[in-house]
Amino acid sequence: MSSGVEAIKWESDHLELLDQRLLPGQEVFITCNTSSETASAITEMVVRGAPAIGVSAAYGVVLACRDAYDEYSVSWKTKIDAALNELANSRPTAVNLFWALDRMKRLIESLPDQQNPTVALLNEAKNIHNEDVDANKLMGKLGAELMAESADLPFSVITHCNTGSLATGGYGTALGVIRHGWKHRIINHVYADETRPWLQGARLTAWELQRDGIPVTLNADSAAAHIMKQGDVKWVVVGADRITANGDAANKIGTYSLAVLARYHGIKFMVVAPSSTVDMSLSSGDLIPIEERTAEEVTTIQGIQLSPEQVDAFNPVFDVTPAELIDAIVTEQGVVLKPTLEKMKALLG
Amino acid sequence: MSSGVEAIKWESDHLELLDQRLLPGQEVFITCNTSSETASAITEMVVRGAPAIGVSAAYGVVLACRDAYDEYSVSWKTKIDAALNELANSRPTAVNLFWALDRMKRLIESLPDQQNPTVALLNEAKNIHNEDVDANKLMGKLGAELMAESADLPFSVITHCNTGSLATGGYGTALGVIRHGWKHRIINHVYADETRPWLQGARLTAWELQRDGIPVTLNADSAAAHIMKQGDVKWVVVGADRITANGDAANKIGTYSLAVLARYHGIKFMVVAPSSTVDMSLSSGDLIPIEERTAEEVTTIQGIQLSPEQVDAFNPVFDVTPAELIDAIVTEQGVVLKPTLEKMKALLG
Repeated sequence: MSSGVEAIKWESDHLELLDQRLLPGQEVFITCNTSSETASAITEMVVRGAPAIGVSAAYGVVLACRDAYDEYSVSWKTKIDAALNELANSRPTAVNLFWALDRMKRLIESLPDQQNPTVALLNEAKNIHNEDVDANKLMGKLGAELMAESADLPFSVITHCNTGSLATGGYGTALGVIRHGWKHRIINHVYADETRPWLQGARLTAWELQRDGIPVTLNADSAAAHIMKQGDVKWVVVGADRITANGDAANKIGTYSLAVLARYHGIKFMVVAPSSTVDMSLSSGDLIPIEERTAEEVTTIQGIQLSPEQVDAFNPVFDVTPAELIDAIVTEQGVVLKPTLEKMKALLG
Repeated sequence: MSSGVEAIKWESDHLELLDQRLLPGQEVFITCNTSSETASAITEMVVRGAPAIGVSAAYGVVLACRDAYDEYSVSWKTKIDAALNELANSRPTAVNLFWALDRMKRLIESLPDQQNPTVALLNEAKNIHNEDVDANKLMGKLGAELMAESADLPFSVITHCNTGSLATGGYGTALGVIRHGWKHRIINHVYADETRPWLQGARLTAWELQRDGIPVTLNADSAAAHIMKQGDVKWVVVGADRITANGDAANKIGTYSLAVLARYHGIKFMVVAPSSTVDMSLSSGDLIPIEERTAEEVTTIQGIQLSPEQVDAFNPVFDVTPAELIDAIVTEQGVVLKPTLEKMKALLG
């Protein structure tokens, strides 16, 4: 991978996940020997980012089926429901998780009961992983070339959360566009929202961009409007955790805010996500379940109490940006400009 | 004071300031025996909030003149320039600081050289302090009554930064409106933006509201748009550090963002500030000097490194909300609806 960060690794008989909770201070891998350990790692945000969750869950299915076959032999397919449900329930918003599980389930159905399924399933999980990296590289090119048509080069962009190698199989979605745009002198500078409460921007995006030598300036999330007013930002570029049939996009809390601000300032807004992020079964973003996490993620940082004890906090992890505020959705299957149901159907069926 | 918090206290021969950097964990007062110590306390944000800075600076002038008279007797007036300049340079954006210094200077000019100026100056500083509390109570009433005209009662509001007893002589500007609104069942719930990077909302506003028993929910700054979309917020209410002749308002970074978001969601936007915050000498907000503080305020929290080392961060402390996004400016001299130069002149001359 171009960025040199390999956050999801299959090591002969188990999964290793770079513990993103400890970055950038420490680079520690967590070992997942079972699907249950994989589900916990997703829930506890050892790994996060919609495509990375999908890839990790696929490897989790390999572990579930291997262990079921080891224990139950030919009846292994009847013994995996609990493990697959646990993986499905690990995070609610990102649809890539369900997409990856469905793809693995289709393969499971086609496999013979009598045979150890591990090799075939591992092969499929690796395919999902590699295809995600390839999709990111293609999206990076498509997104950056679209940006290049729109403004005098080079320019600054704002991004939110982390959408890089850490959030995907590798390379990144919105960060993939930034990587391609930087390499081709389309983008010369990145403003990274720190992305409270979990600080993915401060901890992960700044770390990835710094490693790649791409000029990055951190900012408090609430400074984005002031930065947009200054005029050197031409695009906001973000990822997505689920995109509905009409082009509404759920993504990290604060994304919707950026979309409203971008429109007010005449700045364009791009969502970059593989087609596995699109959920054509939901007609609009109102129907996307929005995960809420504990108040402690807002009231504390790394165990330090910031607010008074017992104060209530509202901690929605995602928000929904309506299609009318999105100038482009970039997928590996192509670009949808000013998304509508018709355009989404035309591209993604 | 209604809130029970007395953050600025004159104690017989010195100033005591509640160290807001340590709240809510510790309630510690810092002693200022000289004007220089007072200026440092302002620069280092022991005390913050535009009206509180003005009140503190007035007491700083008392200390400067007392010490000059003690040392130089009848030539004391010729020996205070350095001290007054140091106070003037302690923070650049809030105009209340300069307003308070000017008011103290006018009194200084009228005093005889031969007489110890301390009592007269202390009296004036206490007047500034008491008048600020009175102004806040009046603004609280004016602002809450204006809100009550606009929507079915009661409703939620969003506020940003801290504008309470800690930010003023006492009672608060925007928090004064919230206090009055809560008491009179106009407001039933407050969303407090945590207000990165300094976390005035999480640390100070949540603390003040909790002490007063006013229902408060903390949120990450970037969640404000998502909250606005839910529909129970009818007003955004904030303070100001400087308001220009045309009604543009400089306030804590993130305020401008809230104003854009409020307009998009059909939510009204109120700025509450004493007339000492209005700078009729500046025609528009572009002319307000915007303080930038160190990157470390963004890259660390309480000494903990959040981002990778050496990452650049942009840390503007304030932004400017244009008058066209403001529905009401509430001062103790009256309310300006949809501010313009003409309306501002009519109210504040």
